[in-house]
Order: sequence, then structure tokens, then C-alpha cells
Amino acid sequence: MIDEIKYNSEGLIPVIIQEYKTNEVLMLAWMNQESLEKTIKTKQTVFWSRSRNTLWKKGETSGNIQIVKEIKIDCDRDALIIKVDAKGPACHTGEDSCFFKNI
Amino acid sequence: MIDEIKYNSEGLIPVIIQEYKTNEVLMLAWMNQESLEKTIKTKQTVFWSRSRNTLWKKGETSGNIQIVKEIKIDCDRDALIIKVDAKGPACHTGEDSCFFKNI
Repeated sequence: MIDEIKYNSEGLIPVIIQEYKTNEVLMLAWMNQESLEKTIKTKQTVFWSRSRNTLWKKGETSGNIQIVKEIKIDCDRDALIIKVDAKGPACHTGEDSCFFKNI
Repeated sequence: MIDEIKYNSEGLIPVIIQEYKTNEVLMLAWMNQESLEKTIKTKQTVFWSRSRNTLWKKGETSGNIQIVKEIKIDCDRDALIIKVDAKGPACHTGEDSCFFKNI
């Protein structure tokens, strides 16, 4: 199934991070193949930072790691959901979710 | 707030569609400014189809429209959540959610 993932032209796939108990969406992040493999191996989320162009282990400095509970792929194989047990706020602002503003 | 949205280099923003009662994620779709404006105006989701390069009113042929309940934007202003009342399956396969496969 992992071999069937369709990465975009930059080698990335969008990943919806969802709290596994409440289903609250915490963030939308991006992964490349290496970060997905590290996520699966370590059972903690590792993203690709598009602003810094580097792997980014979630919680590496903040301690707010995310333990992987479940990974799902969509029908087009070009988006993922990872359900996590979040050990602290997902957002750098200190909010639980990055989606804290209404339009 | 809408004026502050950061579209990507193709003029698109990823949109997480979430069922407003259960918080189940139904799909990850894409919008350009026009489709977002139509979504807000009509209170039904209108996406940008990247495969067909055209606006795509959800449910136009299937009848499975999505009534907009809430729109949220993330801290980076480059991703949206739209919570909807889904009048039928979100996925073209007939599944409620496009994320029906586990990895």
C-alpha cells in the first residue's frame, strides 16, 4: 500500500493529523517518502518542513510529540490521515490545533 | 480573513472536509479563490478539480451535496477545514469517506 502512494511533483503528500480519541483535526502537514518511513518505524510523526526544506521530527524541541495510532490513505492515494495521541499542543502558537480561527 | 489566504503556486489551497457532527474526515479537496467564494455564497461546497481543471460543484451529478456549517483556517493561512452536513457519501466509490483504507 505504501508503494502505491502518489506523491506530488515535489515528492510530497499532504497529511491530516487527527486526534485519535476526539477526531479533532490538529494540523495539515506534509511528508516525503523518507519522513513517512521514519514515522512508521518510530511510531512518532516526522514531517517534511517546506519552509526549512528538511525533515522535522514533531516535538523534537517542544517535547510535543505525536504517537501514531492509525494511518489511512484516500481513494486517490494522494492524501493521508494519521490519527495520533498528541503529547501536547500541535500548534506552535500553543493552541491544541492549528485550526483555531474561524472564517 | 479571506483576503489573507495563502494559495499555493497554482492558486490552490487544500481543504479538509469534515462531518460536522462526528468530526469524521470525509475528503481532502482543493479550492481556488473562485470556488471558495462560491462555497461561501451558496453554502455548499464547490471545489477545483485538478484532474479536470475546472470548478466542481460537489453533488452536482450525484446529488451528494455538502452543506457548509463552519470554515476554519490554520495558523499559516495555507489550509482550510470546512465542516459540512453531508447529504450522502463523499467518495465516488460510495464510501462515506474517501479515507477508507488503512496502511
